[in-house]
Amino acid sequence: MQIITSRQNSTVKDIRKLLRRKARKKTGLCLVEGIQAVLCALENRVPLQWIVVAPDLLTSKVAKEAVAAAEERGEQVLRVSPDVFASFSSRDAPNGLAAVARAQYVSLNELPIGPATVLTVLFDVSDPGNLGTIARSVDAMGSDGLILVGKTTDPYDPKAIRASVGTVFRVPIVRLPAEDTLLSFARRRDIQLIATSAHAPSELDGVRLRTPCAVLMGSEREGLSSQLLRTADVQVRIPMGGGASSLNLAVASGIILYELRRRITS
Amino acid sequence: MQIITSRQNSTVKDIRKLLRRKARKKTGLCLVEGIQAVLCALENRVPLQWIVVAPDLLTSKVAKEAVAAAEERGEQVLRVSPDVFASFSSRDAPNGLAAVARAQYVSLNELPIGPATVLTVLFDVSDPGNLGTIARSVDAMGSDGLILVGKTTDPYDPKAIRASVGTVFRVPIVRLPAEDTLLSFARRRDIQLIATSAHAPSELDGVRLRTPCAVLMGSEREGLSSQLLRTADVQVRIPMGGGASSLNLAVASGIILYELRRRITS
Repeated sequence: MQIITSRQNSTVKDIRKLLRRKARKKTGLCLVEGIQAVLCALENRVPLQWIVVAPDLLTSKVAKEAVAAAEERGEQVLRVSPDVFASFSSRDAPNGLAAVARAQYVSLNELPIGPATVLTVLFDVSDPGNLGTIARSVDAMGSDGLILVGKTTDPYDPKAIRASVGTVFRVPIVRLPAEDTLLSFARRRDIQLIATSAHAPSELDGVRLRTPCAVLMGSEREGLSSQLLRTADVQVRIPMGGGASSLNLAVASGIILYELRRRITS
Repeated sequence: MQIITSRQNSTVKDIRKLLRRKARKKTGLCLVEGIQAVLCALENRVPLQWIVVAPDLLTSKVAKEAVAAAEERGEQVLRVSPDVFASFSSRDAPNGLAAVARAQYVSLNELPIGPATVLTVLFDVSDPGNLGTIARSVDAMGSDGLILVGKTTDPYDPKAIRASVGTVFRVPIVRLPAEDTLLSFARRRDIQLIATSAHAPSELDGVRLRTPCAVLMGSEREGLSSQLLRTADVQVRIPMGGGASSLNLAVASGIILYELRRRITS
């Protein structure tokens, strides 16, 4: 069993490069760290270039068995020393399991649109932690896809993968450079566009919602553009205590997905 | 107008120390960074030791006016160079406004308990970002207080203050070393204890809830102890898609506070 002990090993250097968005974009690869996230990628049969293990750090029996099973069916396993693992880890206490995976995107037309479909659309969301947390909620609430528009940050940023606990590998993700493609798709497939805004005239639970629908969430700072607010079929706000109150974007997204699920299933 | 330009100035050194929990505990002070958070502290008349301004960085007119008004009523303003400001800033692009404030706690008996009171109780929550985001939701949803039990992290950690956008200075916060004090307080004041758990037998919207109540949230990893689950008046879970699904703790807290508000006001 060969163990890489040099931080200057060329494969290790390539792995470290994946911490930067530029290298992820160039290669189409991403670095997945942590047991939960790697197991999620394995379960969803995400194409992997490497499973990376630091045998001296990895103690979880479940993880070790999953690595052995993956190696048996032909996955490549790279074994490294704790020091080498630490050189690309984002954690204070790395648990010794990572992977290099192919970033997964689907096209709009690959999204299965049924009568109960709920899509989540993010415009120019900048914080990878928020993006990952929203992917986790999309997965948990059974929303059918996550559409990232414009300058929205990278769902395969290590911080986003971590906040998603690996669900970026389970949720179908679409990337769109601009909103026009989305708007014509929604018209064509009769998808109700639900815009969210702190200044919307109607409260979330006082509005008639129908499916299929897409929930539109704007950036942390600016919210949705006034043009998008006008274009949407309905505008909603989450009822709040007033004053300077506001909610974190991922919390607001979670509340809206919860409310939609509640209304659809009741 | 004197501007401190040395990182080795003793006041500046004391400010930097506040990045560490130990120094915050010893002094009872905390470092508040950012326009929103400092304005929130000023609005809520939080006792300040210093307002810290880097005049070369601070461009916001609203912020400059607030600083001038505060200085006029006797607050101490410390002016520093951009380099000195950067030495204690947690941001990539500091906006030049910070403050040294007194950490604010109230006692259980100072919480106003009325017929519609909703309290939020966190047990052993470890992530400052989650804690700050929950404080923001508590404020936005009009919950009446935040109770931090056991090993729960510091609400005056710079990461928590930032995630809270300053609402840790508006929401009444209680610190309790252990749960027994809370349990006897709840019995005495007839507060319904609502325990949240992914494994609870009943879904959130199928359970009879009444106020005054306290929502109990467990740690990110372990959730609530089985003893707390048994002690609570009711156990609820947020309906999800099944499988390995789970929600971020701050998102789950936001959904429960939203649902409580919806039920109370409808």
